[in-house]
Amino acid sequence: MSAIDDEALRGSFVTTPSKILLLVVDGLGGLPDPDTRLSELETANLPNLDALAHESACGMTLPVQPGVAPGSGPGHLALFGYDPVKYMIGRGALEALGIDVDLQEGDVAARGNFCTVDDQGNLTDRRAGRIPTAESAPLCHMLQDITLDGVSATVYPVQDYRFVLHLRGTDLSDQVGETDPQQTGVPPLEAQALSPEGARTASAVRQFVDTAARMLSERDRANMLMLRGFSQLPHLPSMGQAFGLNPGAIAAYPMYRGLASIAGMRVMPTGSTFTDEVYTLREHYHEHDFFFLHYKPADAAGEDGDFKGKVEALEALDRHIPDLLDLGPDVLIVAGDHSTPSIMAAHSWHPVPFLLRSKWTRGEGVDAFSERDCAAGSLGTFPASHVMTLATAHAGKLLKFGP
Amino acid sequence: MSAIDDEALRGSFVTTPSKILLLVVDGLGGLPDPDTRLSELETANLPNLDALAHESACGMTLPVQPGVAPGSGPGHLALFGYDPVKYMIGRGALEALGIDVDLQEGDVAARGNFCTVDDQGNLTDRRAGRIPTAESAPLCHMLQDITLDGVSATVYPVQDYRFVLHLRGTDLSDQVGETDPQQTGVPPLEAQALSPEGARTASAVRQFVDTAARMLSERDRANMLMLRGFSQLPHLPSMGQAFGLNPGAIAAYPMYRGLASIAGMRVMPTGSTFTDEVYTLREHYHEHDFFFLHYKPADAAGEDGDFKGKVEALEALDRHIPDLLDLGPDVLIVAGDHSTPSIMAAHSWHPVPFLLRSKWTRGEGVDAFSERDCAAGSLGTFPASHVMTLATAHAGKLLKFGP
Repeated sequence: MSAIDDEALRGSFVTTPSKILLLVVDGLGGLPDPDTRLSELETANLPNLDALAHESACGMTLPVQPGVAPGSGPGHLALFGYDPVKYMIGRGALEALGIDVDLQEGDVAARGNFCTVDDQGNLTDRRAGRIPTAESAPLCHMLQDITLDGVSATVYPVQDYRFVLHLRGTDLSDQVGETDPQQTGVPPLEAQALSPEGARTASAVRQFVDTAARMLSERDRANMLMLRGFSQLPHLPSMGQAFGLNPGAIAAYPMYRGLASIAGMRVMPTGSTFTDEVYTLREHYHEHDFFFLHYKPADAAGEDGDFKGKVEALEALDRHIPDLLDLGPDVLIVAGDHSTPSIMAAHSWHPVPFLLRSKWTRGEGVDAFSERDCAAGSLGTFPASHVMTLATAHAGKLLKFGP
Repeated sequence: MSAIDDEALRGSFVTTPSKILLLVVDGLGGLPDPDTRLSELETANLPNLDALAHESACGMTLPVQPGVAPGSGPGHLALFGYDPVKYMIGRGALEALGIDVDLQEGDVAARGNFCTVDDQGNLTDRRAGRIPTAESAPLCHMLQDITLDGVSATVYPVQDYRFVLHLRGTDLSDQVGETDPQQTGVPPLEAQALSPEGARTASAVRQFVDTAARMLSERDRANMLMLRGFSQLPHLPSMGQAFGLNPGAIAAYPMYRGLASIAGMRVMPTGSTFTDEVYTLREHYHEHDFFFLHYKPADAAGEDGDFKGKVEALEALDRHIPDLLDLGPDVLIVAGDHSTPSIMAAHSWHPVPFLLRSKWTRGEGVDAFSERDCAAGSLGTFPASHVMTLATAHAGKLLKFGP
């Protein structure tokens, strides 16, 4: 049960002037380097985070459940108080949010690939030789001219051979099957409705694909396209309304702005670095009582398998901690959406270090901010969807349960 | 939500060559001796398990929920990924599995007691003076000759005054009430259908009891019998199919072979000792990607209230750990189906120590395999029905959740 849908807590959240700052360190958790036996957090020199841990309540969060490695969507929604299994965001919708597409309720988004087919229409390369963005972006632009009956289609380049298809119209549905047959030597699949309500969308998609195929047909490579992950925005209850908060979000990367936006947060424009984000936070600090602040570089280095890079990213973050403390948040949380161990070069299922500092945290003998130290903290290993209940409690915004 | 019925995880499990070895130490968890303040695990000298814990992810499993002491059925099914509350195995069926009865879907099994009644048919001893197996086994054999209309009845001795009644036929049902009135001075109850579908079975049972009563009537004691726990095998989804595994089971005791079998594992013939089991594991190691290996002596000693015996059973197990490691399993798990503290001489509800070692475990400062040490592990205290999700994740068999 996540906090947002918990009937038992409804009406228990009160609005107060106290401020909560939720710093999400993307891909925070790690694993030890096989030689040193120390994780990225244990290797990094983190005087400020360690001092913070010393006076915080510490623990480990489980993003979804034991053994389940979450994508960015479920990882963040859990921290915002949602049940990450109930509120799934589809691949196409998340990809669209990731490039700042103005995806609205009722729209449909899909991930697209340019691919290459032979004279018979059989796939020879499912990724069109991984053509660079410089080659794919003009193709996306060219495909803007396709008009469909009653459905507006827009194509946005993502990177290399990848793009997003954005459909807007009435009665659209995500019930459309992917067109990638997952093998070469056969033609791409035709878009099929997965249920009756998908019929209209599937028909529009087939019309789009046929037209695009003709427009691309003269090319040697990237002469065809495939689509998958048809999805719509899930309808999320507003986390601000659920918790009596006026939440604001600061994230340099579009995907996290998108996630904050569908959770009902106000997304503040900011620059492309964490320094910009902290500046934006300081400028707007009087405007909200809850801030989601996103730090990306730890995950980026982890996904690249760059242990040293992740250590440096954590050390760079550590140097910003005094700036955050200077603002005097009543509750300061340092959490992660998931672990991204450098030695795995991928998101993982491992529980994620967590600290929360307020005037009601006791400092519990945790001397460092690391996986091993936080595992011994007083909060134990707990579902990430409980973080918002903890946060509001420490901020004096959650009433006593029961008489 | 157990892993096997979790819609959100359906399709997320992939088959790979990696191997998982699940060692279930029956009744693993214990409680401190009042004098030494050390539990069985803390008292035992366990150099191999301690070293294993040091490089593992550790935690405590909750078999069912806090405060609930499970029987062997729920304790094992949870570890195999089933919701132990949803998939209940009845008392008669479990008893039948425990003596290797060939119980099949549609059959009904019941637990039986020989008892003693007086001239008026009133109970004078509900356990017939706890007659020894040497006396009850011939009685069971004699009762084989009873023929019922369209239902085949077989009686198997268990121990002392206890036996199993196995019914096979069409349209049988477990909807039959027990015949033990739970007091002396009154006659045994007549078998009654608990719902309309139980009518045919209840009628066959009454016919069996009447005939048996006549055959036993000349005896001084054990001149009557009572039946309870009428049950059928639950229909369980195959755990192999759910997790994309080809599971094999090695257990010296019949009940655990039965439990593995109804979960869809291939049960390998083995000898009566754990040394035999390890030999069987080595012989068949190339044939499966998942092994359930059962170790009974810890529970047996615990149930006897034999603290020292349980310590010795744990030490004996410890000496086998290097043999298991030599096989090189990608994931090695040491878990328990429940706690059996010697000072309670019974199954208990206490969370059970758990360790999992793979190349993705961080080694987290847990220096010993014990209740206190595992409670400080990074996995925290978690439902046993999540063990299979963890196992498959660490074996690289569980895909990322959500984009």
